[in-house]
Amino acid sequence: MTSLKDVAAAAGVSVATVSRMLNGSLELPLETKKRIEDAIRDLNYQPNPHARRLSRGRSDTIGLVVPDIANPFFATLVAAVEAEADKLGLAVSLYATLNRPGREVAYLQLIERNHVDGLIFVTNHPDTGQLAALINSTGKVVIADEDVPDAKAPKLFCDNEHGGYLAGQHLVEHGHRRVLFIGGPETMISSRRRQLGLERAICESGGSPADISIYHGEYTIEFGRDAARRFLADKRPATAIFASSDEIAIGLIEVLRAEGVSIPDDVSLIGFDDVGPLHLFAPPLTAIRQPVRSIGERAVALLLETNWQEAPRASETLLPVEIVVRRSVAPPTRQINRNENHQRTST
Amino acid sequence: MTSLKDVAAAAGVSVATVSRMLNGSLELPLETKKRIEDAIRDLNYQPNPHARRLSRGRSDTIGLVVPDIANPFFATLVAAVEAEADKLGLAVSLYATLNRPGREVAYLQLIERNHVDGLIFVTNHPDTGQLAALINSTGKVVIADEDVPDAKAPKLFCDNEHGGYLAGQHLVEHGHRRVLFIGGPETMISSRRRQLGLERAICESGGSPADISIYHGEYTIEFGRDAARRFLADKRPATAIFASSDEIAIGLIEVLRAEGVSIPDDVSLIGFDDVGPLHLFAPPLTAIRQPVRSIGERAVALLLETNWQEAPRASETLLPVEIVVRRSVAPPTRQINRNENHQRTST
Repeated sequence: MTSLKDVAAAAGVSVATVSRMLNGSLELPLETKKRIEDAIRDLNYQPNPHARRLSRGRSDTIGLVVPDIANPFFATLVAAVEAEADKLGLAVSLYATLNRPGREVAYLQLIERNHVDGLIFVTNHPDTGQLAALINSTGKVVIADEDVPDAKAPKLFCDNEHGGYLAGQHLVEHGHRRVLFIGGPETMISSRRRQLGLERAICESGGSPADISIYHGEYTIEFGRDAARRFLADKRPATAIFASSDEIAIGLIEVLRAEGVSIPDDVSLIGFDDVGPLHLFAPPLTAIRQPVRSIGERAVALLLETNWQEAPRASETLLPVEIVVRRSVAPPTRQINRNENHQRTST
Repeated sequence: MTSLKDVAAAAGVSVATVSRMLNGSLELPLETKKRIEDAIRDLNYQPNPHARRLSRGRSDTIGLVVPDIANPFFATLVAAVEAEADKLGLAVSLYATLNRPGREVAYLQLIERNHVDGLIFVTNHPDTGQLAALINSTGKVVIADEDVPDAKAPKLFCDNEHGGYLAGQHLVEHGHRRVLFIGGPETMISSRRRQLGLERAICESGGSPADISIYHGEYTIEFGRDAARRFLADKRPATAIFASSDEIAIGLIEVLRAEGVSIPDDVSLIGFDDVGPLHLFAPPLTAIRQPVRSIGERAVALLLETNWQEAPRASETLLPVEIVVRRSVAPPTRQINRNENHQRTST
């Protein structure tokens, strides 16, 4: 299909110029206008009515709100949104909330003030109801990655439950029965659904949720370190750990390594995200891979394709995850053998 | 020293509100104004005259232009600028050039249009003269990380030459004489200066620049892969490699590992940046650490402290780097022994 970009290239003008001519917000010299019209005709370009619905007479800018750009998951998501918006002739205004709820409210109000035509919104904490109310009143917000439960908006997540299931299935296949789940914030869907998927896999294998230990916290390196210390203080309640983000896995590996705990000989580990260079870790880390770039691309598309003139309603799109098998999961029998060897040596 | 943030907290208002009251761009209810004035008096707050010079009556927004947010180095830099600007009550508009020079020009023009009060500018390619001319005409631009040579502006880099020297010295101390330098773009200062520092270390040890092989390319994983293939095709022209970015090192390690080349047994490796989780790699990667967060913080300070009413002039600030020694550099004798063993086995 011919894109706005093709038309702009053929006419020798910027995508924004074509976009603005099409929505009537820009007066152009006749000669330029004719070049664009010729390009549209020659390439048989069909303007996207949804994009025009969003941007007519407005800023041609979409906003993107994320908690923290230094986190590689969000950085990659931002880059994907930038690239996709650029293809469509839209600019992106990025807003980092730095984990301060007051900022989220301020950014949502940018829509009402026409500073942005619409917003892709990523939160990382439970809503008190304020965010949902604001989103329902402004419209033109796509919710991505984490839910704002009462918001009536298009929502886009990775298939967290299936990711948890794939992780659990992989551990079960290697013979693990006692598993530690290290989640993010307890009430957020990313953590809840990954845990549900893990529980389903364990139950299907004949186990029970009682075989799963659970630590909840933040998706940070620091929480990964805390969780590793707690795992050791708890006398290693599991033969395998499912760490629900790259950052948690990094902090966890740091501490386990410093304490002389070998992966996978002493404990198996599976991660979630697979954005960082996990394939170069010692050992290369098995992980559930999030479709980060697809989330960014689809979020832009949802913002443009939704008919915002209609009454708002919630919809949910799930993008598929996959398991990337490397070398951080081994059968627990190796661990038992090692323990026996240790005992033999010490007696 | 009391900050704007302390005043805002004491008065129970946002930093932006205090900032706007101080520069006269916001009319407040008398009661709020009094609370702020009381807080200023109680805390003995001295407004920063430079910050007011930059932002008086303007957007209270600074712009940040980076090539690519998905690169963790730039993502961390962006996060540091965001955090520092936030402390000062300024918003940040982020612009990713996606490696397209036309975008850089467009973003620089935002200053003239008063969309931003000033700009922190990071490029990643040689300038044809257009960028320098624009920067010299707009003013209010701080250049960070890579140079725009003819621009008369405050410039902020890490001490690339010293970083190259530290890397060379470390390799020399381990007995390496033949070193491969994998640089970024040949004409950019980050690459030129790192190479100069490496050459100085080699020469001081009694070697000559002729002992250094040099590959130039991009600071990308893909170029790291290409460089590794070329190193092997060139029959390993060095016993140690100095890879001048995290991304290059990642691509390089991928290919070397796939080809069965062991680090540091077959070849030593030292990196540059140390932003990614290099400490978890197999082996943990020795690297020169860039002060990424300090670069972001100082860039904001330079933008606010420079007197833009004076005639523009170039100045250069260098921030210190350090070497983080891990386990990817070993004496070349181990390599020679291995080769002898190989020969013994094969005869």
